[in-house]
Order: sequence, then C-alpha cells, then structure tokens
Amino acid sequence: MTVILEMDRTECLALLESAQLGRLACARDGQPYVVPVSMAVMGEDIVGFSLEGQKVEWMRANPKVCIQVDEFDKGRGWRSVVAYGRFEELPDRIGWKVEREKARSVLAQSAEWWLPGGLKPVAKSRTSPLFFRIVIDEITGRRAQQGD
Amino acid sequence: MTVILEMDRTECLALLESAQLGRLACARDGQPYVVPVSMAVMGEDIVGFSLEGQKVEWMRANPKVCIQVDEFDKGRGWRSVVAYGRFEELPDRIGWKVEREKARSVLAQSAEWWLPGGLKPVAKSRTSPLFFRIVIDEITGRRAQQGD
Repeated sequence: MTVILEMDRTECLALLESAQLGRLACARDGQPYVVPVSMAVMGEDIVGFSLEGQKVEWMRANPKVCIQVDEFDKGRGWRSVVAYGRFEELPDRIGWKVEREKARSVLAQSAEWWLPGGLKPVAKSRTSPLFFRIVIDEITGRRAQQGD
Repeated sequence: MTVILEMDRTECLALLESAQLGRLACARDGQPYVVPVSMAVMGEDIVGFSLEGQKVEWMRANPKVCIQVDEFDKGRGWRSVVAYGRFEELPDRIGWKVEREKARSVLAQSAEWWLPGGLKPVAKSRTSPLFFRIVIDEITGRRAQQGD
C-alpha cells in the first residue's frame, strides 16, 4: 500500500536544491497560470530567468507566486514540494549587478542544458533575459512510499 | 540553436491526451497554488481525482484553474501545453453517476500506477475520492526544437 507522508523543512529544501526545473504559478484577477521554469536555489531564495511575456507581466502586477518541484521513482514513490513566495526582479542596472551575476552563475551551473537555448533567441530578439528571485515565505512537501 | 514555436490546437490536444500527469494551479486571494495531479482527457474536458484538501477547497471557492503538461526529450527539445478552465465536481450522487463512472474508468486506464495508491488511503480514512472535471476554455502550447 502507498503511504503519503509530510516532508520536513530539511527534506523539502534538499528536493528544491536538487531540482533544475520547477512549475511556477502566478495569478491575475483570480486566474492562475502555470509554466515550467528553469530554476536554482541561491541562499534562501529560488532564482530563475525568463523571457519577457505573460508570466513576467502577471508577476509584476501580482508578485505572489507558487513554485512546485517533484521527483518520481520507478515504482509508485514520489516526492513533491510546494513553495509559496514573492517574485522580485533582479534588474540589469546599478545596485543589482552582484545579485544578478550570482543568479546567472548559479543558473548556468544547474541549468546548463536549458540556458544556452533560452539565451540565444533572446539575444537575437535583442531583449535582455530577465533574472528574478522568489523569496520563499513557506514551504511544504509530501512523499509517497510503499508501506505495509 | 533552439527555436521556440507555438503549437496549434491539434498538437496541444494530442499532448494533453498523452499525459497522465499534469500540474494543476488554482488561486485564492491572489495567491496561486500548484500541485501535480493524475489526469486524463474525457471528451472535451480534463478529468482528475483528488483527496479532500487545500486544492479542492480553493477550487470550490474559485473554480478558475490552469493545468499544464509537458514532455522533455533527451536533447533540448520539449513541448508544454497550458489549458485554462473551470473546475467542476462530479459529485457522488444521483444525476452524476454516469459522468462520474466514466471519469473513474478513463482515469483507471490512463493513471493505473497512481489510482490504486491514491484510493487505498482514502478508503481507509473513509472519505470518498473526489472526481472532478476541468472544462477547458482555452489551450495554448509551445515547443522547442533544434533549428539551424
């Protein structure tokens, strides 16, 4: 039988840290929107990057977001973590250069397979990639495992 | 170079139909919430099931939802579909039996690995599993592929 258990904060953070891909949800006028994002953990925050578009527009209007990561094993076991937080841009201007460079470097390490692909079309379209962080307010997780 | 292309409705529906797992986002008071759900396509709708809990509570209060499915290949290619829709319960009472039975049977086919695990603890805790459908209002999709 499958048993579903709560994960403690340490387990939640470990799963977040191992994830390179999360699903990021934002909302406008009560309508949620969810998309996959390349992500990494930087200190206490999650960092990500995006092209300009609907999710960035929505997060600027309402910074409340939720990011979810999961991992499935070959059997029926899985782990899923949900983090609630607030979107903050790491703008390309004085005062933000250090944070922005740190985010770029962390993302380049963990999301190498995605970043170059993500960045090339951006460079082509002459818009800068947008780096952001999610300041985590709360984190919860559940895991399923085979029980007796 | 990776090129990102819009998917047409037929491609979007094909990906939705092949998916057994989606990420379902709902929102309350501007706060989004996203969790993985076992899902299947039934006619024009998405059907799923859940235990009673936060997401069901939130979707009852605000039926606007968003469901996202994706598929990653071994290279840098991926496809992702986002469907906006409205949550509707398929309650366990007269007038809903046929729809509910259809949903249960569609889910049992496509989500066999998950359903029995999901159902056993429910039976134990003596709460009924909740079946629901998402009436799709809009669907969009993007895919990334290697270009020149």
